Amino acid sequence: MATFPPAMMKLIAELAKLPTVGEKSATRLAYHLVSKNRELAHSLAVAMEEAVRQVGFCERCFFLAQSPLCSICSNSSRDSSVLCVVEKPMDVIAIERLGDFKGNYHVLHGLWAPLKGQGPESMRIPELRKRLLEGGVKEVIVATGATVEGDATALYVARIVSEQGIASTRLAQGMPKGGELEYADDVTLSRAFSGRSRISA
Amino acid sequence: MATFPPAMMKLIAELAKLPTVGEKSATRLAYHLVSKNRELAHSLAVAMEEAVRQVGFCERCFFLAQSPLCSICSNSSRDSSVLCVVEKPMDVIAIERLGDFKGNYHVLHGLWAPLKGQGPESMRIPELRKRLLEGGVKEVIVATGATVEGDATALYVARIVSEQGIASTRLAQGMPKGGELEYADDVTLSRAFSGRSRISA
Repeated sequence: MATFPPAMMKLIAELAKLPTVGEKSATRLAYHLVSKNRELAHSLAVAMEEAVRQVGFCERCFFLAQSPLCSICSNSSRDSSVLCVVEKPMDVIAIERLGDFKGNYHVLHGLWAPLKGQGPESMRIPELRKRLLEGGVKEVIVATGATVEGDATALYVARIVSEQGIASTRLAQGMPKGGELEYADDVTLSRAFSGRSRISA
Repeated sequence: MATFPPAMMKLIAELAKLPTVGEKSATRLAYHLVSKNRELAHSLAVAMEEAVRQVGFCERCFFLAQSPLCSICSNSSRDSSVLCVVEKPMDVIAIERLGDFKGNYHVLHGLWAPLKGQGPESMRIPELRKRLLEGGVKEVIVATGATVEGDATALYVARIVSEQGIASTRLAQGMPKGGELEYADDVTLSRAFSGRSRISA
């Protein structure tokens, strides 16, 4: 039984280590790189080595940064009294895209997910506690996702925040824009009810 | 509005050039490489550069090879009188996995897909004609997929093969193993009817 040449097999094996990339996708990607777009293979290899060498974590908020402080923490016009706690750097980008939030962030790089074997030690919690102890923070907005892990993490973070006598808030949960009642799941509908707000007529 | 640092943006842009990888997936992959698995970023970069440097096409059948001839063409125990024509190297692997076919291959690296702007010149057809002219081939099995492009390509290849007075066959089309009649599409069912075979009782 003939197989791919060794260097091709090696490339497939490495690509298959990426999250969400199975062996079939890895094979297609490897074939594309080797036979259709060899320039991409080179520019991608360079971009990967460069990114790993140059990109690290902001030493204050753990967003991605190419210097000790990220572009947000080093921006003195932002309000350092409000801290928005998120799971991952992509969440920072999603909130920044809105352009409404002018405070600072704290990126946990994980969630409390006991079922996946991820305890609180997998998150940047000690660093959050240290920031709060340094003073100056008046409100912590916990912006983890509306999932089981997001909820558990929010409660965990809220407890640590309250220990320092600081107020914490959580993003509203309810019907998404365009959502039809008929198709909403029970948890969403129940949260929309309990979080209902007065109509100002 | 804050964004990712430049080296991260560059990596996302390069990853998004891969087929089937959109910007969201590219961002997730880049985050994984930069913050969860930096060793993978390096080993993957090396594997890509190595594969592009070492893997090329077999000069006879155009399967992937690390020497002028691939492992199949350089295997003298294979029957060079039967040629199996396929679209891409992955198809060779699929057929080899069966272990039944002992002939040689010819990889077209494309299909005749006028709707996608791919004419016959995108395939290794001149090289196929040259191989047939050299003599020795008695049967050509056209193993392109059962798609519109696969069908068109099969007819195109069959004409070239018949010009040399050589017999060509095509893979059977019909019901897939486990297929329920009720759920079969019209084309599949119609081909299964027209290709029906006698039951030897």
